[in-house]
Amino acid sequence: MTAQVEQSLSSRPQLAHKQLANAIRALAIDSVEKAKSGHPGLPLGTADVAAVLFSRFLKFDAANPAWPDRDRFILSAGHGSTLLYALLYLTGSSTVTLDELKRFRQLHSKTPGHPENFVTPGIETTTGPLGQGLAMAVGFALAERLLNAEFGQDLIDHFTYVLASDGDLMEGISQEAIALAGHLKLNRLIVIWDDNGISIDGPLSLSDSVDQVKRFEAAGWSAVHVDGHDPEAIAAAIEAAQKSDRPTLIAAKTVIGYGSPKKAGTSKAHGEPLGADELVATKEALGWPHGPFEIPADILSAWREIGARGKAAREAWQSRLAARPEAERTEFARRINNETDARRLHAAIDALKTRLAAEKPTIATRKASELALEALVNEVPELLLGSADLTPSNNTRTKDLKSIAPGDYTGRYIHYGIREHAMAAAMNGILQHGGYRPAGGTFLVFSDYARPAIRLAALTGTPAIYVFTHDSIGLGEDGPTHQPVEHLAALRAIPNLRVLRPADAVETAEAWQIALGRTTGPTLLALTRQNLPTVRSEPGPQNLSATGAYELSPAEGVAVATLFASGSEVEIALAAQKLLQDKGIGARVVSVPSLELFLDQPEDVRKAVIGNAPVKVAIEAAVRFGWDGVIGPDGIFVGLSGFGASGPYKDLYAHFGITPEAVAEKVLARSHA
Amino acid sequence: MTAQVEQSLSSRPQLAHKQLANAIRALAIDSVEKAKSGHPGLPLGTADVAAVLFSRFLKFDAANPAWPDRDRFILSAGHGSTLLYALLYLTGSSTVTLDELKRFRQLHSKTPGHPENFVTPGIETTTGPLGQGLAMAVGFALAERLLNAEFGQDLIDHFTYVLASDGDLMEGISQEAIALAGHLKLNRLIVIWDDNGISIDGPLSLSDSVDQVKRFEAAGWSAVHVDGHDPEAIAAAIEAAQKSDRPTLIAAKTVIGYGSPKKAGTSKAHGEPLGADELVATKEALGWPHGPFEIPADILSAWREIGARGKAAREAWQSRLAARPEAERTEFARRINNETDARRLHAAIDALKTRLAAEKPTIATRKASELALEALVNEVPELLLGSADLTPSNNTRTKDLKSIAPGDYTGRYIHYGIREHAMAAAMNGILQHGGYRPAGGTFLVFSDYARPAIRLAALTGTPAIYVFTHDSIGLGEDGPTHQPVEHLAALRAIPNLRVLRPADAVETAEAWQIALGRTTGPTLLALTRQNLPTVRSEPGPQNLSATGAYELSPAEGVAVATLFASGSEVEIALAAQKLLQDKGIGARVVSVPSLELFLDQPEDVRKAVIGNAPVKVAIEAAVRFGWDGVIGPDGIFVGLSGFGASGPYKDLYAHFGITPEAVAEKVLARSHA
Repeated sequence: MTAQVEQSLSSRPQLAHKQLANAIRALAIDSVEKAKSGHPGLPLGTADVAAVLFSRFLKFDAANPAWPDRDRFILSAGHGSTLLYALLYLTGSSTVTLDELKRFRQLHSKTPGHPENFVTPGIETTTGPLGQGLAMAVGFALAERLLNAEFGQDLIDHFTYVLASDGDLMEGISQEAIALAGHLKLNRLIVIWDDNGISIDGPLSLSDSVDQVKRFEAAGWSAVHVDGHDPEAIAAAIEAAQKSDRPTLIAAKTVIGYGSPKKAGTSKAHGEPLGADELVATKEALGWPHGPFEIPADILSAWREIGARGKAAREAWQSRLAARPEAERTEFARRINNETDARRLHAAIDALKTRLAAEKPTIATRKASELALEALVNEVPELLLGSADLTPSNNTRTKDLKSIAPGDYTGRYIHYGIREHAMAAAMNGILQHGGYRPAGGTFLVFSDYARPAIRLAALTGTPAIYVFTHDSIGLGEDGPTHQPVEHLAALRAIPNLRVLRPADAVETAEAWQIALGRTTGPTLLALTRQNLPTVRSEPGPQNLSATGAYELSPAEGVAVATLFASGSEVEIALAAQKLLQDKGIGARVVSVPSLELFLDQPEDVRKAVIGNAPVKVAIEAAVRFGWDGVIGPDGIFVGLSGFGASGPYKDLYAHFGITPEAVAEKVLARSHA
Repeated sequence: MTAQVEQSLSSRPQLAHKQLANAIRALAIDSVEKAKSGHPGLPLGTADVAAVLFSRFLKFDAANPAWPDRDRFILSAGHGSTLLYALLYLTGSSTVTLDELKRFRQLHSKTPGHPENFVTPGIETTTGPLGQGLAMAVGFALAERLLNAEFGQDLIDHFTYVLASDGDLMEGISQEAIALAGHLKLNRLIVIWDDNGISIDGPLSLSDSVDQVKRFEAAGWSAVHVDGHDPEAIAAAIEAAQKSDRPTLIAAKTVIGYGSPKKAGTSKAHGEPLGADELVATKEALGWPHGPFEIPADILSAWREIGARGKAAREAWQSRLAARPEAERTEFARRINNETDARRLHAAIDALKTRLAAEKPTIATRKASELALEALVNEVPELLLGSADLTPSNNTRTKDLKSIAPGDYTGRYIHYGIREHAMAAAMNGILQHGGYRPAGGTFLVFSDYARPAIRLAALTGTPAIYVFTHDSIGLGEDGPTHQPVEHLAALRAIPNLRVLRPADAVETAEAWQIALGRTTGPTLLALTRQNLPTVRSEPGPQNLSATGAYELSPAEGVAVATLFASGSEVEIALAAQKLLQDKGIGARVVSVPSLELFLDQPEDVRKAVIGNAPVKVAIEAAVRFGWDGVIGPDGIFVGLSGFGASGPYKDLYAHFGITPEAVAEKVLARSHA
């Protein structure tokens, strides 16, 4: 800080604070006004909180936004993005310049409508869908504790701060997240709730009367009320939170649209520009006589000093890292950057495939996945396994893997509880923090519960791994509430998510190789409950699953039909092939472990695999939706057109006509037509 | 009750209670054992609670399971279905016979793995996906209060009881549900929590440490702890709950697998048969010397008397109904059975279409939806509108519609809060109770948050209506977190859900006609934020949207290309048609308001609409997934292959190449190739 400003700050701390906060407010409302769209209410209301947090507490170095041991600040209420952009500019981001503030919400800007970590350095994660930021923050805070335990206090030791809105706390995912954080005693997680009493429909009293402090306490948190416009009260609350042995909620009572004479304290302040006149009136009320995007030099300078405040701490950290042996430094860098050790991964998978080729086990692919994990868990030390309370069903836990427990972060297995949504969101946070490759299990049908977080993983290019078992009517008696029929299609439709549905233990090993080798987005393994034979009897080192589909079994003689199938239905395709060939009808079988990976291949690759056999059949114990991309609208589909049913799984396959005989019959009818 | 049993009950109430409870236990474990699959832990643990509730409190008449004013009992922890089946058999269900208990979990039985209300009379709703039953129960309890306010205390006046598990309370949806119920003061909702301290992974302490009583109190509930094996304590808690001015949580401490010497109190009791030896040992420990599926006559008789206990109350109710004027009786029957008054509906829509044809408005389809609602709200008195805190964006509220408020149930608008999941689940509950046609709004992208409940609506044939606006990149600046690209595909993949994406105000009116005319499943309206011209300039009384697709504009001369489009992209297709025809290339435009409705049409209908033009183009500001069913793998798709971006919407359409020029160019390239 310049001496002048420092003096000003120390002699008139309230005034100085007000100037710091008003700089945020002014830039935020100017940005929204210029964009003719956006959300002025939150930055106006929370600028005091943000100014206190950034100026007095947050450990960061604006010049090095990726410093691994920085404190994380997550704006869960992502619609208030101008708060972040203003802070980035003020503290000296090299990306978010004044020009970028002026390009708020414009195509190709660094200042999109909601914060996007894949667009803007200094943005920790992508928020906007409510509750996600809070739940991801639990992952950030857990990753911090895990790395702290594994690499030592001198390399990882930071806080994770969240600014959350009423909407964040009303979404169900918030309960899953706070229950998990409270249980695990993630005491370096500090959530500041923008308690403004307003939602889009009007006063919050229209829809809510939860006592949030009591609710958080019930989840094992510390929780306090403060005046969100009193900087000393905010600071005292943060200081106390830093010392708590539990995560802390700071309920900061604020006025939405603070300063706006006509809109403050109303839902009108939330989601649209103030309007030219009201903007002027607001600045006047705030005591901010400066023009649009104008920040007086002394204020800017004060903010820039705040942005550089962490430089010394970062340099000290870098010295400590440099003092480590080279191997440790290399490994730490690999880990924090989520890089794969390809050599060890591939060696482990190749060895496993060789063993499986010899043993040819008849096992469920969920069990095959467990075999793969046993082979990988020591070779991929960043693997962090877990399940949403279906550990014995998902087979996600390898032998002797230690569980993470409240206050003890030396394990590598997470009992997420019956919280699929928070699991998927926490996995995003863990990965975006860096350090671990989480893989989490539930039943495939419950991917629906986790879907908003799965989508965020795909959007942000976060390489989460979903181990989703019980992947069809093959789960049997639990019935249609538990049998996915549309989920494969619904998940394949998400851009940048890879869905893999392996046919046997070999393809399952390949699926794990693909998942762990991928660093640009999430991968989902759809695995069976029921046993399957090994169909890949002579696997080589090549990963045949990697292009999504391949000819598993050629036709005898001329191919009249090609039978495409995935997962458990590959066995049926092979049996149908035999039935057909016994009748002199040549049929090929193409295994399709990943429909969308296959559809993404170049046209010539696709055409070669699809081939020229006149009859095209797809077999999958699920809905047809999406398969026309392979077999065309006139192709034969053997699967389901509605929901499943409760019964032993072999009865269900027969009932729904997903059998070798049904396939052969349809091919015969078509080839004779 | 027989005099003998009555005497036995009154002289030895504890013993009698024990016999009643053990009858449930024995049937439950026998059913699971015979099925070789199922969940014995919950019925063993909660039989005491169920026996008290059914024998002393629940208002029902087993011979008339559909009596509208019965108390509802919802087993949210649906995996414990044998508890329900045992109760149904014991109380005298004409459907769930002893034979059906023996066919538990078999195909075509009335006793599927999880309770299914569309299979078994006496089952109130379909549960299994955790948290759904609890959240639907909020809808049941709200419907009860609304009908009570509308039709009077003498016709509707009952309780809604829920039995919920740890899993139900850990799922995020539970927070949304209890916050809504607490806020609305639904004091006739009584939730009994099976507090057994065990989940599938092991002791609950592995993953949870929430103080549930405190949590429910924070949400505005009464909440008490009781010993779940002490019938008098349970009874006292239910009595108190019935008198509370708030909804009540009864935390009933139980032992999972109660009675099983080796498995009680452990996760081993949860999800698999006890095994032959342990079953025998359990019965011995319970003091139940009877063979498989054997219920002594006096116990069965006592249970049958319980099942008939409500007969007098039901008959009295029927007398009260009979005393009402015929018009009221008819309307009540129509309402409680969720029947549509087709005449009024169609008259209102026809009048609206005629007006729109004259006015040809250029408006967003969300605004067109509001116009439809204004036309319908008085003609369809069962319409119950609402939004998950996006009322001004979803345009779901008509003028002067009164809001439902805590303790005041005379309104017809629900402020669900920022709780998409609970909204969709509550809508299911409202409909399954009967009496109202709820339509709830949010942004289309947040359908992901509500997806498990939407799926349950489709599975159970529940005709919920989703008013999901901001249906593409056309929402503009809010960016990719808010722009659905895969959601149309993902929703179309759900069996029995109808997705309608109207192109203008006329198709929007038709969409409402389809939605309200449908009684066998849910309908989703995907509506724009941005304005669209009226493209159906001469609509007649026929609902052209009803077959999913129709030729909107024929080609001039020979059709070289057919342009298929939905919603906001129909305007683009029409402009492309003009560009092409200016170059002498004939092109047809087919509007596709519902892709999956169209794909469900008979082949000849489909072929006629698809036509013979060699070039097929689909235009939709979303992913291609699913469209190959119309245009084939070689068809041209103009849409998105990844996520959207933040910017003014016209910039986005240009950026992603979804323009008339791009369409025309691609058709020209193909037709010249």
